[in-house]
Amino acid sequence: MQQEIIKLLKQIRQTDARNLYGKDFLLTWEKELPDIERVLLVAEALQLLRQSNISTRCFDSGLAISIFRDQSTRTRFAFASAANLLGLEVSELDEEKSQAAHGETVRETANMISFMADFIGIRDDIYLGEGNAYMREVGEALDDGFRQGVLQQRPGLVNLQCDIDHPTQSLADLLYLRHTFGSLEALSGKKIAMSWAYSPSYGKPLSVPQGIIGLLTRFGMEVVLAHPEGYELLPEVVSLARDNAGRSGSSFTVAHSMDDAFRNADIVYPKSWAPFRVMEQRTELLHRNDRPGLKELERQCLLQNATFKDWECTAERMKLTRNGEALYMHCLPADISGVSCETGEVAAAVFEKYRIQTYKEASYKPYIIASMMMNMGFEEVAEVLEEMWKEESPRKLHY
Amino acid sequence: MQQEIIKLLKQIRQTDARNLYGKDFLLTWEKELPDIERVLLVAEALQLLRQSNISTRCFDSGLAISIFRDQSTRTRFAFASAANLLGLEVSELDEEKSQAAHGETVRETANMISFMADFIGIRDDIYLGEGNAYMREVGEALDDGFRQGVLQQRPGLVNLQCDIDHPTQSLADLLYLRHTFGSLEALSGKKIAMSWAYSPSYGKPLSVPQGIIGLLTRFGMEVVLAHPEGYELLPEVVSLARDNAGRSGSSFTVAHSMDDAFRNADIVYPKSWAPFRVMEQRTELLHRNDRPGLKELERQCLLQNATFKDWECTAERMKLTRNGEALYMHCLPADISGVSCETGEVAAAVFEKYRIQTYKEASYKPYIIASMMMNMGFEEVAEVLEEMWKEESPRKLHY
Amino acid sequence: MQQEIIKLLKQIRQTDARNLYGKDFLLTWEKELPDIERVLLVAEALQLLRQSNISTRCFDSGLAISIFRDQSTRTRFAFASAANLLGLEVSELDEEKSQAAHGETVRETANMISFMADFIGIRDDIYLGEGNAYMREVGEALDDGFRQGVLQQRPGLVNLQCDIDHPTQSLADLLYLRHTFGSLEALSGKKIAMSWAYSPSYGKPLSVPQGIIGLLTRFGMEVVLAHPEGYELLPEVVSLARDNAGRSGSSFTVAHSMDDAFRNADIVYPKSWAPFRVMEQRTELLHRNDRPGLKELERQCLLQNATFKDWECTAERMKLTRNGEALYMHCLPADISGVSCETGEVAAAVFEKYRIQTYKEASYKPYIIASMMMNMGFEEVAEVLEEMWKEESPRKLHY
Repeated sequence: MQQEIIKLLKQIRQTDARNLYGKDFLLTWEKELPDIERVLLVAEALQLLRQSNISTRCFDSGLAISIFRDQSTRTRFAFASAANLLGLEVSELDEEKSQAAHGETVRETANMISFMADFIGIRDDIYLGEGNAYMREVGEALDDGFRQGVLQQRPGLVNLQCDIDHPTQSLADLLYLRHTFGSLEALSGKKIAMSWAYSPSYGKPLSVPQGIIGLLTRFGMEVVLAHPEGYELLPEVVSLARDNAGRSGSSFTVAHSMDDAFRNADIVYPKSWAPFRVMEQRTELLHRNDRPGLKELERQCLLQNATFKDWECTAERMKLTRNGEALYMHCLPADISGVSCETGEVAAAVFEKYRIQTYKEASYKPYIIASMMMNMGFEEVAEVLEEMWKEESPRKLHY
Repeated sequence: MQQEIIKLLKQIRQTDARNLYGKDFLLTWEKELPDIERVLLVAEALQLLRQSNISTRCFDSGLAISIFRDQSTRTRFAFASAANLLGLEVSELDEEKSQAAHGETVRETANMISFMADFIGIRDDIYLGEGNAYMREVGEALDDGFRQGVLQQRPGLVNLQCDIDHPTQSLADLLYLRHTFGSLEALSGKKIAMSWAYSPSYGKPLSVPQGIIGLLTRFGMEVVLAHPEGYELLPEVVSLARDNAGRSGSSFTVAHSMDDAFRNADIVYPKSWAPFRVMEQRTELLHRNDRPGLKELERQCLLQNATFKDWECTAERMKLTRNGEALYMHCLPADISGVSCETGEVAAAVFEKYRIQTYKEASYKPYIIASMMMNMGFEEVAEVLEEMWKEESPRKLHY
Repeated sequence: MQQEIIKLLKQIRQTDARNLYGKDFLLTWEKELPDIERVLLVAEALQLLRQSNISTRCFDSGLAISIFRDQSTRTRFAFASAANLLGLEVSELDEEKSQAAHGETVRETANMISFMADFIGIRDDIYLGEGNAYMREVGEALDDGFRQGVLQQRPGLVNLQCDIDHPTQSLADLLYLRHTFGSLEALSGKKIAMSWAYSPSYGKPLSVPQGIIGLLTRFGMEVVLAHPEGYELLPEVVSLARDNAGRSGSSFTVAHSMDDAFRNADIVYPKSWAPFRVMEQRTELLHRNDRPGLKELERQCLLQNATFKDWECTAERMKLTRNGEALYMHCLPADISGVSCETGEVAAAVFEKYRIQTYKEASYKPYIIASMMMNMGFEEVAEVLEEMWKEESPRKLHY
């Protein structure tokens, strides 16, 4: 462990990350490659220290606020775990129990909850065009509050999933890929199929596929986005992925066949999402609280989805991948045919084969979130890690 | 900082506060002036230590229980912040998820949640004649449980707003005024207009205006309570304010004109509330769960309110105040005309001018609550503060 | 205190507990007598240290997850208190706010919430035949996750009440009995009446009476289970109680008369429960979400209950007990005649006489839960306790 941590600390010091300390983490593409690398390295250092029973509480007290505008299990627990790992207590803003719904402005609420907040994590992925904008509105209110002396500290924002990106997911996925393939460099030239897959539900957010194509096109990979026609992602993210690919020696293509995407893929990521145009309509209907309209939209979408039931990650299809052994990824929970639904995103046998690996994929998220927080909160993050390592204060007393 | 903290510690030692340690904090007028002063001083000391990155965890573990019988954002977070600041974990009694609603007696619940509780914060402001009484019932149950050996410690109660008073608000307001005017002495002779204002809602609690007139009449101020006829506060609190004024060299008058109240005021606090007679009726109807009755009462009240739409804190009216520059105060959220409602308590331009200041006003609440807790829990609070100061244990590790 | 703690540490070292460390705590009858004794001893040591203001935080950080599939006040707070006592933060899995309800498998959720979890407490007592099975399913998922490297640590499970047993209750009751009667040995030969009692509600779980007869028949006691015909407990637990009695020199009998059970009893535990056959039907109806069926079942059961209104713990009946002075026990909240209902489990005068004692009975639960956790998490628990004792780090700073 000693050598590993020394090596990690050295690598952390060498990464010239300039967009983390004192900045929010809202979109991976607002960060430079050294920032991304630093987040991965610090996540690994935190994991290593915890595995060695060394306390990583760099805060003695302080709050990590969470705002969940959608259901969540794993991100909720990942955030709670990350906060606890650093010594912070989670305090959740439950908008139903608060006065926030009653005409209180975002800028006011943002300040009112932040007097002792070091970080605020936000999930807001239901309304297309609004989730990320809401985070920025909160961020501006915090900037203003801090500048004007309302807040003693400017809490850092962590995007826990919005309408555009899901950075804690895509970075956990990237760290998982690095572990699986040995290094970021080893990802170069690897083909990943980020593919739409059938699900008997509708309205799933776009942030995961968008996050994946927006991030992995920066690492020299061959990224194929596959979906039936009509299931487009946000055009600006697709365009950004294309630009990324141009700059980084990656390639980025859009396919309308799952088979094409899977062919010779090293990695497949089959996952359902709603067409962005549907998400736009849904946003409007939700705003008008138009229940019949929403019901009708759902009916239509499910009907449309049903014409693409063959977009399933089956054992047969997996045979098309590199040596029939591509790595299957998923952000979970997956819609598993015959398990959680009749027909879904993935055949039971395929999922079962990779089940434990998807759990490991998920296991990086708490460390990614904790790393984001540490990098936002401490300029000299290597020094803080080194101090904690040398202190050797046990997380759990033992003999 | 060194000199400031030394000065504060000296002042804390000099205040002869006799009604804080081991006592609940339910009404400001149950406390003597040195008690009030001590709460402000300790709040400032805690703020100073935190600003200097010094840990103020005087508890290594322990629970701070909260019971919210009404919606809350800022008080909820202020309580969570205060508890965390002192090293306590918040555990909320959600009465819907508990068996409390199912015939369990108050005295039983009070003991059951308190085995490891150092403090219990309660908001109960909906039922006139009951909120404060409920707190006292809890207090008596805790006294009994402690005396009989059920509880190892007697948790201290903090009134987080009841039907009568809102001490954490009024004391935060007082600390804000001291900061704004330089000292408590400087408040002497200053005129404050605690005025009713129009709001398109009904049933707002009386505790803020009652808390303000019950507290500020003790500091030599010229306190004017203004409201339309029929919008009376609880007679006993009005009478208490009058008595306070007689004893302290303050004055206390009731006006039925917002203009009269604002004229030459140094401070204005325009805020809506429901007439206490309406709150009484509402309490009855709520108990009978008389939905049509509640609806009808609301309709009548909104109609009546609407005849007083001109009770708005406008720029024009602000010109009546001392040099047209009175300090505008509000406990937030305010009903801002054209922002959170069509016509409300305050014109948008006036609110915007003082917006940041109202946020600062709110920023004292976590420290006031933490101070109440420390003063309730530690007899020699100056010694504890000094120990924490000298220890210099960092709240946040850094370089 | 010094001598007491030295004595306790010695006793803890002498108990040859082999089924606690690294094991879940799901049923008391899966543990050997030294295990049971160890749990009581460590609970007492923790209580003693806390009373002496010595910190018992053996975790510097870490999560204690709770899953409540039924309402709870006292167990919820006992769990929160226990976690906090050891330095862990509670994070509750609210299944309504999570994706767990949406087709996610138990084995997946179990892993997803556990990346930083040291313990998981579960209450699942509504569905007969399922609560304990659910806990075991979670346990197997955790075993698998840990074995396969998904989890860095295997969180220990605490049964916070299931369809079969309520070990944190029965062990708190046992510790209370030991305090009341002086020692476990002194319980030998004592008669306890675990009796059904009338309540104007239906569907109360069987876990308390089952837990009591399953545990106390191991300590040489004369255990009488009394209930009207038709109010049977799970046959396998009754049979287990009978076997226990055979092995331990206890006796176990079933009576159909409350008077017979009370006659010469040293302890009475009158408490309502639903017949296990009703709980089976209810489970089926709940699964089918058969509202009319549930309503009809409730109607029938309440009718049937009403024919046994005389099964009440009255002052008259208490006279039948040993010297008319049997110890009255209850897990709370009790249905008290004339207080929480018209006619209930216990007369107001009887309850009032023992009220404070029932509160003390309840006060052991947080320590029992904390002890279970410590024993699950630390092999050398006496060493950890001794280290905390010698360190003398104060829970609360003071002079």
